[in-house]
Amino acid sequence: MKTILYSALTANGNYGDSETGQLPKQEELNNLDKHAKEAGNIVMGRKTYEIFNDGEIFSGLDVVVVSSNKTFEDAKVVESPGEALKYLKLKGYNNAFIIGGVTLANVFLTENLIDELYINIVPYIETGLKLEPTDGKFLNLELLGHQEIQNSGIVQLHYKVG
Amino acid sequence: MKTILYSALTANGNYGDSETGQLPKQEELNNLDKHAKEAGNIVMGRKTYEIFNDGEIFSGLDVVVVSSNKTFEDAKVVESPGEALKYLKLKGYNNAFIIGGVTLANVFLTENLIDELYINIVPYIETGLKLEPTDGKFLNLELLGHQEIQNSGIVQLHYKVG
Repeated sequence: MKTILYSALTANGNYGDSETGQLPKQEELNNLDKHAKEAGNIVMGRKTYEIFNDGEIFSGLDVVVVSSNKTFEDAKVVESPGEALKYLKLKGYNNAFIIGGVTLANVFLTENLIDELYINIVPYIETGLKLEPTDGKFLNLELLGHQEIQNSGIVQLHYKVG
Repeated sequence: MKTILYSALTANGNYGDSETGQLPKQEELNNLDKHAKEAGNIVMGRKTYEIFNDGEIFSGLDVVVVSSNKTFEDAKVVESPGEALKYLKLKGYNNAFIIGGVTLANVFLTENLIDELYINIVPYIETGLKLEPTDGKFLNLELLGHQEIQNSGIVQLHYKVG
């Protein structure tokens, strides 16, 4: 099973802060939704789930929330990235689709669990958070593709890790 | 006169640290050189000049170094970004071409002096520095283009500020 991290950075390289950052554009949400549907599942941290879940947005997807201290009715809750992947692998998925937030993304990167990355570069400069392994390791990437998402000004970069 | 900032970020959004980061690929240096020759000039901070200047690399270019406490034989030394732009404007250039490092780039961004940005996204994840206005302001960008530099895996994003 392949593990895919889907993320967005400002043009100056910051990960959006859910408290102070911009809302995603509809074109980007549509793109995320397309990728999630292809995978059949979506993995996220507790905070991301609480922000986005409106009872509909994740319908039809196997939703996995990584949280050590919460349970949710509509989602499978697991305690670690490894446990999330084990659950999805047992269910026979070809891809695990991880959307963050940044704390969870950084744990996946630190534990070398990511095979492919989508990074959307959004067209503004803003302060924010850092997407990076917490142990500061270097990861080589291979560019698989790049495209503008519709006419949004957002360039999506696609990489293979290693 | 248009002011262009040319910079590079890792795929996870960090500006390369000259002490610990990777060296630029030849394809990227060739691309930088092409842009500098088009402008006819190149503006940088003291440290960047001391790292790159080998007596040849900047030949044929009007080299401007922003430094408050050094003088160099082969370069015009000025004390501020504003002074650099004034000097180039008086000499009749259409474009001023700024290459950093990050301290200087961030001063240009903070002072709203940048009209266009080239940001090269290099294909690896690494720790590094932050490209951003020091006052934390939000800057909207318009995507002018995106292309891979030769077959380097580096995607160059081109933006207009504002």
